[in-house]
Amino acid sequence: MQRRLLTDDEVASALTSLPGWHRSGESLTRQFTFVDFPEAFAFMTRVAFIAEHTDHHPNWSNVYNTVDIAISTHDRGGITDVDVDFATRVSELSP
Amino acid sequence: MQRRLLTDDEVASALTSLPGWHRSGESLTRQFTFVDFPEAFAFMTRVAFIAEHTDHHPNWSNVYNTVDIAISTHDRGGITDVDVDFATRVSELSP
Amino acid sequence: MQRRLLTDDEVASALTSLPGWHRSGESLTRQFTFVDFPEAFAFMTRVAFIAEHTDHHPNWSNVYNTVDIAISTHDRGGITDVDVDFATRVSELSP
Amino acid sequence: MQRRLLTDDEVASALTSLPGWHRSGESLTRQFTFVDFPEAFAFMTRVAFIAEHTDHHPNWSNVYNTVDIAISTHDRGGITDVDVDFATRVSELSP
Repeated sequence: MQRRLLTDDEVASALTSLPGWHRSGESLTRQFTFVDFPEAFAFMTRVAFIAEHTDHHPNWSNVYNTVDIAISTHDRGGITDVDVDFATRVSELSP
Repeated sequence: MQRRLLTDDEVASALTSLPGWHRSGESLTRQFTFVDFPEAFAFMTRVAFIAEHTDHHPNWSNVYNTVDIAISTHDRGGITDVDVDFATRVSELSP
Repeated sequence: MQRRLLTDDEVASALTSLPGWHRSGESLTRQFTFVDFPEAFAFMTRVAFIAEHTDHHPNWSNVYNTVDIAISTHDRGGITDVDVDFATRVSELSP
Repeated sequence: MQRRLLTDDEVASALTSLPGWHRSGESLTRQFTFVDFPEAFAFMTRVAFIAEHTDHHPNWSNVYNTVDIAISTHDRGGITDVDVDFATRVSELSP
């Protein structure tokens, strides 16, 4: 079963519940900043578990204490409810 | 230069600043509990960075959401200020 | 659905395909040794993904370059095919 | 003490000992591919230990089984021997 692409309105609506997240083309994106590299990487470890558990993997990058996450449903070429769920789970990680 | 073993009084004094830590023979020990396995393992990742950064490695175990840490200066057969520093750094990790 | 406990013969038979693994009471156990702590912890990260993916978590410990794993089906009080699968997946990790 | 920027010839010479690495402007870069996400992330964990141990952190990104690493000496605005050392250590990680 293929996921349905969310409409622009649905994405905009979802973002109202996802502080810090933005739409960037076909992805939901957010930047996270930490006190240092180990804290940033420990956060990445937690996100990696979410990615593996949900089998939905972000396009992400790290420089020292900054982590940039972009999540998209690649085989659909856009944003689906799976991306919203992923963003929600990441946001729910304790700070 | 070899580290000096702390006296019993020095260990007891150090523990007053290390809530949750106990002396268990030649080690300082503490148990940490988390909401689930990913949180426990992310914590272990942070501790692993401390261990690698300070080149001082704990004897530790994990079962699901519980992490038990014991730290000792093996080549001295007891507790030194390096162990107290390690315990302090671990305690300072944000929860 | 509860997992069925394996018989002693079934456990012994499974171990013939799991070099390095042993039975220790109600668990399957194996010790792994690496060149240093980072390699040991990177291995633990890979095992952690298996644990989270299969929702089956080991009782394990680490000291520097050594990792000891014990896997058991706690709610059955013994060894089931889930433990054999876990041990097989861990063994299949590239060295 | 500030690190000296390597000359173009020195960078080119260093790259002859670093298969898979390229120069991209002010950085040394390399792409790594793995069988799946857990293997890619376990590799990142090993690189993270190198980064923390040497206090030299890459600009890197991951998508599923692919990891792209760029290393540069930011405060010098170019490539120094620290970057060559970092690339060498990463290449020496067992596959």
